[in-house]
Amino acid sequence: MKKHGVRGFKFAARSAGIKKSGKLDLALIYSEVPARCAGVFTTNRVVAAPVLISRPRAQQGMAQAVIVNSGNANACTGEKGMADAQRCSELTAHALGIPEELVQIASTGVIGMPLPLDRFERHIPQLPAMLVADGADHVAEAIMTTDAFSKVAMAEGNSGDANYRILGLAKGAGMIHPNMATMLGFVMTDAAVAPELLAAALPIAVEQSFNSITVDGDTSTNDMVLLLANGMSEGAEIRPGSTEADLFQQQLNAVLLDLAKMIVRDGEGSTKLVKIQVTGALSCADARLVARSVATSSLVKTAFFGQDANWGRIIAAAGYSGAELNPDLIEIRFDEVSVVSAGISTGKELEDQATEVLKKPEFCVHIDLGLGEGASHYYTSDLTYDYVKINADYRS
Amino acid sequence: MKKHGVRGFKFAARSAGIKKSGKLDLALIYSEVPARCAGVFTTNRVVAAPVLISRPRAQQGMAQAVIVNSGNANACTGEKGMADAQRCSELTAHALGIPEELVQIASTGVIGMPLPLDRFERHIPQLPAMLVADGADHVAEAIMTTDAFSKVAMAEGNSGDANYRILGLAKGAGMIHPNMATMLGFVMTDAAVAPELLAAALPIAVEQSFNSITVDGDTSTNDMVLLLANGMSEGAEIRPGSTEADLFQQQLNAVLLDLAKMIVRDGEGSTKLVKIQVTGALSCADARLVARSVATSSLVKTAFFGQDANWGRIIAAAGYSGAELNPDLIEIRFDEVSVVSAGISTGKELEDQATEVLKKPEFCVHIDLGLGEGASHYYTSDLTYDYVKINADYRS
Repeated sequence: MKKHGVRGFKFAARSAGIKKSGKLDLALIYSEVPARCAGVFTTNRVVAAPVLISRPRAQQGMAQAVIVNSGNANACTGEKGMADAQRCSELTAHALGIPEELVQIASTGVIGMPLPLDRFERHIPQLPAMLVADGADHVAEAIMTTDAFSKVAMAEGNSGDANYRILGLAKGAGMIHPNMATMLGFVMTDAAVAPELLAAALPIAVEQSFNSITVDGDTSTNDMVLLLANGMSEGAEIRPGSTEADLFQQQLNAVLLDLAKMIVRDGEGSTKLVKIQVTGALSCADARLVARSVATSSLVKTAFFGQDANWGRIIAAAGYSGAELNPDLIEIRFDEVSVVSAGISTGKELEDQATEVLKKPEFCVHIDLGLGEGASHYYTSDLTYDYVKINADYRS
Repeated sequence: MKKHGVRGFKFAARSAGIKKSGKLDLALIYSEVPARCAGVFTTNRVVAAPVLISRPRAQQGMAQAVIVNSGNANACTGEKGMADAQRCSELTAHALGIPEELVQIASTGVIGMPLPLDRFERHIPQLPAMLVADGADHVAEAIMTTDAFSKVAMAEGNSGDANYRILGLAKGAGMIHPNMATMLGFVMTDAAVAPELLAAALPIAVEQSFNSITVDGDTSTNDMVLLLANGMSEGAEIRPGSTEADLFQQQLNAVLLDLAKMIVRDGEGSTKLVKIQVTGALSCADARLVARSVATSSLVKTAFFGQDANWGRIIAAAGYSGAELNPDLIEIRFDEVSVVSAGISTGKELEDQATEVLKKPEFCVHIDLGLGEGASHYYTSDLTYDYVKINADYRS
């Protein structure tokens, strides 16, 4: 089997002229047999047309093909947008000779522009002939928008005598880009997974990966993550509660976390990947509030860019997070260097050591609230000149 | 009466060497008679020592003096910080010969550094001799941190035969700066105001001004707004429910809104003052969610900087605000130029006109949700290279 392939899945990508640059912008993922399917979709109240079509189909639990374009989000496009998305679904089903209910569609790109439907009419019918087993890397490239690099991750596991693979593709350079709409993730596995396990495993994996990263705190109209399991590894079906289910969850988590960290590293203008690890909260929900508040604070993120061990901003962001806390119990470490103990500075010497930690491209800020057992984490980037430049100049 | 004075109030400011720059950094506000007092304080769970001392005193409803320093926030400074704040309060009461309970104290500056108490010991006793009726502008200067300009606003009203004045001083260049801790506001009036009216009027005025602006969405450990009313206008006491009370509220609102808009204009690195006006929400709370979500979106704020009428980012920010909305009913205008009607673009010509609106230093983004009667607004700034520069470089 070739690199970045999974038994029974084939991939095709082409340039359909949706992106002005002429780069790859239309892709097809196809499973030789109908696959079990689970999906997680944007929580934004404004939802793009392709999400409105794909979401109810994913809830049916089966899919065989994903048609995805970059360069245009088909969001805020009204009735024409819905009709266009519907037509893309029809074209794909027809080209592949499969029922429309097994087609998932996804779009990413500029909001509010009508889809150039003629290009889909012309190019979708040509995709099936291009399908190849080792084409996943081209699909990863075709879904890029402001991404600086394509994002692919793999893991393996086994069930019974058979090995299976989990292959993940993602795009996003910013947690979330209402304008560049979107974070997209497509995960393919040849494992045979019980439907209820598949449906339960994806939200768990998404929560600790894509939902634990932030570049700018915005949530797009088009975000979606799909997990397709076609069972072609011929291993025993993985059932909930088994050791095999634990392994599958663990490997799925690893693939999604790899992809999520790539998104932060590729965060618009970002130069650092920072893990915000919170422990000692009264509850995991409280730990999450603190991690999110610190990870999304513009002041904290600019301090990371400035390589300034500015723990005052971190404490303040924890303070307004809404979580229960006692300032006098807070401990803060940059990697292993303690800068705050019992709520006050540990002194200049340790702060100077912490400044060295901040010069690294990756580090961890550990915040212990000293109250209980609640823990959570977030991955974030720094806020840089280039973030402003990319987002002020885009579209113009 | 001199410019920027209010009967019965005196002001003093000096350079006590707390700021490295040698600029004014210690100030005293004094009322010849004990004044009725109302206060609004930070909602951050991490609260600076001066707030812990001033808040319970303000709740008693009387104050005669405010001692305030810039250059050091006295936040996250543990037991020593509390002892230092206590000592500043004692020094002030002693120097003025008034009860300690009538002294309000406030600090703004770097978090986590011990207060240089020797400088307060030396300089506070010298302030009373410097008190003058026309010194308010110097106080406004002495409370500045990263502010580019000092902030003073005035209004007048009358009750019975007597005119009164309302004088407001503020600092802040960012809604809120956990590091530069803080937004401070001091409002003095010679009106005679019934205590229950005073206590009710301040939160109303703060809600539509200081609580309706954002530069970076962070809330500091030191934020406070004080309102002192000494009754020296000799007008009739203004009582709740009267026409005079309405006028007083209106004038107080105007002073605080003026100051709040100055803070946004002076927002770190900001080049634009943008009003986000939301109407047609199901409730005022929903309108506020939308206004806040749009006003704090980094993507929206960078688009303002880029002078890009990027309504897709605005709709997306509305969509994840948590408010009830129907995308198909949304209308968006930049000043008077409609860019979105019934949820979709009004076309290229109007978008080009909107781009012209975005070139102005001040404009309004009007979002109508088309659902109900709920309305609210926020004032925000753009997110610029200089915001990143100021906040990455500060402290170092």
